[in-house]
Amino acid sequence: IASKLPSVGTTIFTVMSQMAAEHNAINLSQGFPEFPISEELIELVYRNMQMGHNQYAPMPGLPALREEIAQKIAKLYQTEVNPDEEITVTAGATEAIFSTIMALVNEGEEVVVLEPAYDCYIPAIELAGGVPKTVALNPKDFTPDWEKIRDTITEKTRMLVINTPHNPSGAVFSPEDIKELKALLEQNPNLLILSDEVYEHIIFDDKPHLGVLADQELAKRSIAVYSFGKTFHATGWKIGYLVAPTSLTKEIRKVHQYNCFSVNTPAQFALAEFLKDESNYQGIGEMYQKKRDYFVERLAASKFKVIPSYGTYFQILNYDNVSQESDVQFAERLTKEYGLASIPVSAFYQQKTDNKMLRFCFAKGEETLEKAADILCKI
Amino acid sequence: IASKLPSVGTTIFTVMSQMAAEHNAINLSQGFPEFPISEELIELVYRNMQMGHNQYAPMPGLPALREEIAQKIAKLYQTEVNPDEEITVTAGATEAIFSTIMALVNEGEEVVVLEPAYDCYIPAIELAGGVPKTVALNPKDFTPDWEKIRDTITEKTRMLVINTPHNPSGAVFSPEDIKELKALLEQNPNLLILSDEVYEHIIFDDKPHLGVLADQELAKRSIAVYSFGKTFHATGWKIGYLVAPTSLTKEIRKVHQYNCFSVNTPAQFALAEFLKDESNYQGIGEMYQKKRDYFVERLAASKFKVIPSYGTYFQILNYDNVSQESDVQFAERLTKEYGLASIPVSAFYQQKTDNKMLRFCFAKGEETLEKAADILCKI
Ligand SMILES: CSCCC(=O)C(=O)O
Ligand SMILES: CSCCC(=O)C(=O)O
Repeated sequence: IASKLPSVGTTIFTVMSQMAAEHNAINLSQGFPEFPISEELIELVYRNMQMGHNQYAPMPGLPALREEIAQKIAKLYQTEVNPDEEITVTAGATEAIFSTIMALVNEGEEVVVLEPAYDCYIPAIELAGGVPKTVALNPKDFTPDWEKIRDTITEKTRMLVINTPHNPSGAVFSPEDIKELKALLEQNPNLLILSDEVYEHIIFDDKPHLGVLADQELAKRSIAVYSFGKTFHATGWKIGYLVAPTSLTKEIRKVHQYNCFSVNTPAQFALAEFLKDESNYQGIGEMYQKKRDYFVERLAASKFKVIPSYGTYFQILNYDNVSQESDVQFAERLTKEYGLASIPVSAFYQQKTDNKMLRFCFAKGEETLEKAADILCKI
Repeated sequence: IASKLPSVGTTIFTVMSQMAAEHNAINLSQGFPEFPISEELIELVYRNMQMGHNQYAPMPGLPALREEIAQKIAKLYQTEVNPDEEITVTAGATEAIFSTIMALVNEGEEVVVLEPAYDCYIPAIELAGGVPKTVALNPKDFTPDWEKIRDTITEKTRMLVINTPHNPSGAVFSPEDIKELKALLEQNPNLLILSDEVYEHIIFDDKPHLGVLADQELAKRSIAVYSFGKTFHATGWKIGYLVAPTSLTKEIRKVHQYNCFSVNTPAQFALAEFLKDESNYQGIGEMYQKKRDYFVERLAASKFKVIPSYGTYFQILNYDNVSQESDVQFAERLTKEYGLASIPVSAFYQQKTDNKMLRFCFAKGEETLEKAADILCKI
């Protein structure tokens, strides 16, 4: 059979997690927390299953959950979104991104993706018949190069995908970036923004999260994607949501409706309750900041260069003082010989790129981070 | 924005469930059970959440669950499937169908759909760039008209979608149908079968379920889709699986990987355990048969004509002795004036069709079924 996605293999996350398991390595590759989730959240799911909340939720999501999401958004971004027409609960942020691209990108339309990029954007664009156009972020600090972005946008460009806080780099948008983004929308009346903000709460050093919902002009032209898995340390629950203007939501829901139809009902009831208490998500950035600091401080004695991470639970290290191998080779050797798995940053590029960088997930306990840092200091 | 799915509105299931709620009507429209799910299954999910099984499951599904599925298939269909390469756990059967069509149907290829048809097939085909070709089932008993099917298949036909036991009619494939299907595959070397078998366990009167996995020749060319939601009365959990030969699975997983990536982890652990005890699914057909019989017996005194249901939890009634309204009008009046919601069977057709038939879901308690039958007997 002729493949519709000929270049797609197994994701790097699966490859590296498997390699970690085979070699009994510390797994800082695939991004997932190693600590337990809230006991209260578990009890809420349990209670809702017992109460008989086990049948189809409404297609766009449980009304009570969408209401709570709207209130969270109001608090965080000082804006009103309509829970009935602008919020849709999805089978994780990945499904939100997939259904959005399927619904809004037409045959032959271009979508601009900033690289390094999370790996699900480009296959979705290709499957929709769209044409991905990649633009490299600045290789030093992973900030957007707005001139290059402007030059890449043509009349055929339907969408720009942004991601702040940024996976894999931990870079975050600045007020200047938001200004550039707004200018771009003004210059390109048909352009839409797909804004992957799954790490909205994982942002450090008192920086504000500059998401599209905080700006009325941006919000009107954007699809913003969020993840309960990231925020509540339950990546395996596969539940997220998207926020988009009514006219876009209408089209996205047409796809969502025939893709997954609806999302796990007891989890939706539980999250509706859990969201009522802000403190369940307000301290998360601080918690992860401590982990970043702990990991980075322990690397002071190593030969690795730290690329500052301002958000997400990822830390990029440059290893060009240590080895001249390609990042794929070095990541492999680090796993097999040293027992530490990471992600080679080149995996996030379509363009052949090798910046001698690896990404490490620090959503782990201190003991794990200490062991990992010890390994890195010995190299 | 130009819609990619211009003809798609809100699904009939949502429309009728909402109408039922507004008019406080008995809801026999959308198909979902009203009785509780297994306490043991709830406990298993709870325990697995507590054990920390809350992070990403492997993309194709938890190995332990795929192993148990393979054993279930071996018992039911006397065949061996490879759990690593031929079984994929999905976010419900709907996602299985969507990802399959996205992966395997190319621009301009035709897909034959037998009508009345469950509503998710055609939008998925359209979104993939395929061309749906509908063939009506025999209007009396909803058996396939193989001559018509043969006549509709051309060189451009990529796939035939079948569904046994059949929603909405309750018709099931006979040995003769299987013979015809095999002949069809022989005559059309490029044809694939997408077999929606979500009601595999809900089959009555000691009929065997004649699914594609029971036949080696069919299995080689088929994608078979199953649903834990249907089998364990938990439609809101959104977890199912698909079985397909390695070469097809490879392509389908490329889409699944970027669509949902993976499925609820604690539910997968729980189901792996729960499947070990056959009795958890073996008695389900009998249980539903009693419900069908109860409902149908109480209709003996009514003017409605019962179209025999041999499987699923749906019963079609013909109302042409009662009214000459269109089925949409009559379904609406039945909900608003009489307090009983159903699904007009015309909703399952692209072609304008009005057989004066309504579909009723009997996955309900006796009291609900009695009340519904009483209403129907009074009309
Ligand atoms: C879906 S596996 C990838 C998890 C993740 O977000 C990452 O590692 O970047
Ligand atoms: C996803 S809502 C539809 C449920 C169902 O299977 C049916 O009513 O046919």
